[in-house]
Amino acid sequence: MIAAGGKGVQTIAGGVTAPAGFRAAGVACGIKANGKPDLSLLVSDTVAAAAAVFTTNVAQAAPIVVSREHLAASGGRTRAVVVNSGCANACTGADGMRDAREMTRLTAESVGCQDGAVLVASTGVIGVKLPMARVASGIAAAASALSHEGGGDAARAIMTTDPFSKEAAAEATIAAGTFRIGGMAKGSGMIEPMMATMLGFITTDARVAPELLQRALKAAVDDTFNAISVDGECSTNDCVFALANGASGVALGEGEFDVLVAALKQVCEPLAIDIVRGGEGATKLITIHVTGALTNEDARTTARAIANSPLVKTAVHGGDPNWGRLVAVAGRATRTLVLDRARVRIGPIELFSNGAPFDERAPQAAEYLQGRDITIEVDLGTGGGGASRMWSCDLTAEYVRINAEYRT
Amino acid sequence: MIAAGGKGVQTIAGGVTAPAGFRAAGVACGIKANGKPDLSLLVSDTVAAAAAVFTTNVAQAAPIVVSREHLAASGGRTRAVVVNSGCANACTGADGMRDAREMTRLTAESVGCQDGAVLVASTGVIGVKLPMARVASGIAAAASALSHEGGGDAARAIMTTDPFSKEAAAEATIAAGTFRIGGMAKGSGMIEPMMATMLGFITTDARVAPELLQRALKAAVDDTFNAISVDGECSTNDCVFALANGASGVALGEGEFDVLVAALKQVCEPLAIDIVRGGEGATKLITIHVTGALTNEDARTTARAIANSPLVKTAVHGGDPNWGRLVAVAGRATRTLVLDRARVRIGPIELFSNGAPFDERAPQAAEYLQGRDITIEVDLGTGGGGASRMWSCDLTAEYVRINAEYRT
Repeated sequence: MIAAGGKGVQTIAGGVTAPAGFRAAGVACGIKANGKPDLSLLVSDTVAAAAAVFTTNVAQAAPIVVSREHLAASGGRTRAVVVNSGCANACTGADGMRDAREMTRLTAESVGCQDGAVLVASTGVIGVKLPMARVASGIAAAASALSHEGGGDAARAIMTTDPFSKEAAAEATIAAGTFRIGGMAKGSGMIEPMMATMLGFITTDARVAPELLQRALKAAVDDTFNAISVDGECSTNDCVFALANGASGVALGEGEFDVLVAALKQVCEPLAIDIVRGGEGATKLITIHVTGALTNEDARTTARAIANSPLVKTAVHGGDPNWGRLVAVAGRATRTLVLDRARVRIGPIELFSNGAPFDERAPQAAEYLQGRDITIEVDLGTGGGGASRMWSCDLTAEYVRINAEYRT
Repeated sequence: MIAAGGKGVQTIAGGVTAPAGFRAAGVACGIKANGKPDLSLLVSDTVAAAAAVFTTNVAQAAPIVVSREHLAASGGRTRAVVVNSGCANACTGADGMRDAREMTRLTAESVGCQDGAVLVASTGVIGVKLPMARVASGIAAAASALSHEGGGDAARAIMTTDPFSKEAAAEATIAAGTFRIGGMAKGSGMIEPMMATMLGFITTDARVAPELLQRALKAAVDDTFNAISVDGECSTNDCVFALANGASGVALGEGEFDVLVAALKQVCEPLAIDIVRGGEGATKLITIHVTGALTNEDARTTARAIANSPLVKTAVHGGDPNWGRLVAVAGRATRTLVLDRARVRIGPIELFSNGAPFDERAPQAAEYLQGRDITIEVDLGTGGGGASRMWSCDLTAEYVRINAEYRT
């Protein structure tokens, strides 16, 4: 096994077009009133194995329903992914389903494949119908702009309130040769670790069977995209797609599962962290470690509650080392907290240990909190080995402003 | 049975000293640096039956532990309640337990009763020790200031970030005579419907056995204090105490359970709503009705998720009729949402019905959202009769400011 960041897997520049045999484009077709790019196309030169993780929200948007159908019918064989931003095509009834299908049909026509070989994703305002004439012209324009260097344009055209675009890529070398993985993601608000928490698109030029790709994607997503939270919300549209086209000539089987997961994580982790860094109104990245839990599940529940706590997020924003709020959140999140053996650290500074506070260390912790990268550690005191890591961001007046004014 | 607000139960002026045989006082003793009132005393002239509902947080503050012990040991017989604000005496280890016991001992000495007949509550910053010399002088000062008109002073001295004090009282007339119920509450941030969500103190001059009082209090709290949320947080210190001293001469038995619950709700509901209205940074009261659920429990889970959703709370704040966020939250909160039969109303305006949006009505809904009292209705579309009502408030930049600057 080769660990992420280890000798065999290393970060390289680029995004979804870093692996061989993928072309992409991003164009502005007028879905967004402000004229910014709003339609992306990602195409594999040959049929690729495809895998996906979808939102757990029951209110699934039309593109989610259509992509699920296409993946199931094709047995995980895909040529292209079409994505629009500016309109979620969610809660749009039968019209929305028709529009999502039409997006795949138009893309298939441009690319020269079956409708079922196209996946579709949308992000933006819920409950508004797609302006299909504009979408159609956007698909045509994107199809003629497709290039092996188009990853950056594609990453920009899937943004909504994101302050910057998100790309990552990695290269892995094993005995059989070298393969690459690339990715792009978007997401800023409505981010929660229930999967899927945003849109993510991963490409690789390794050859992988759809079933193995699905298992590896799920494993990588659990520790990356599913371990972030901006505001505890889980959208109607979220999904992560992975396409493997085999263009590198390197085939990965069951024996390479671990290196595949490590390489996927090498791309998914920076994308996930970038989503939090670019969280709506965020000024600080908070890394939360929960340890000393009876189980990993218990630790995850606690870490998630801390990640979503408005009192913790505002305290970090204000540079207030209010560790009592961490204990309070842990105490409501898990029945297993052992208060007189619990420990809380903010950065390297221990503020609570074995039931007693070290409030005199608060000024040190306040100084630490002036930084932009904040680490919080909570040991639940059970003596168990359960642990979990999550990433969150601070809650700011700017978050309120963005979300109070999104449409009006 | 007499319904709350019906002929038999009516609202009257006053708070905890509205019922006969209760005296109260509130003083400033220097626990708060700003010199505001910070210690309250509530004393029944005779031994009262007592009941309590405590926070479900595992990290229970010292006063919670001590009050539990005293209630259990006395069999629900209480003379006095002592409350301080400005310091939660939570996560303070063995010293905190000693200080909470000392508060009951000093109060018992002043009032002339056993330590075990005194209940204690604290609210304020977690992890800081009580300045016991000041607390002692405060208890002495409050004991000499006790009066049958002291309810208002007591209500002011339990406030922390509350923008106004919260009192309510009611009078109920049954065949056996007339009795009164009074109450006071505090709570502004760290408010969540997991019980107990704040401090609440209820008095009545009816004669009620402790066991009956406990059941009635629990029933009243479930539909009032447990149906509110400011920020989804659940504190280490929250509790609601009820004291029944029988001074009216009216005895309530099993046959009067319903009227007792109705009268308790008549006091608890306005206190609970006032907590939301006075929520940290709040500018709007949001009443959430969830209907058409398979079970009441499902409806409550959904209502709670809507009440705590930062995206819903910011949209209401900004006057944005973003009903899609309501569908998205309902979809992540319950597996039973039937999207193509669900309905969403903001005030009287239906914005989503049977899977289709009425976005052309958005301007009407935006105008409605300019008001201060906002009603939201979500029908989950299952055809079931499960329903739940909750109260929440909007999320504002002021909430962020208050909680980012609480200590620093």
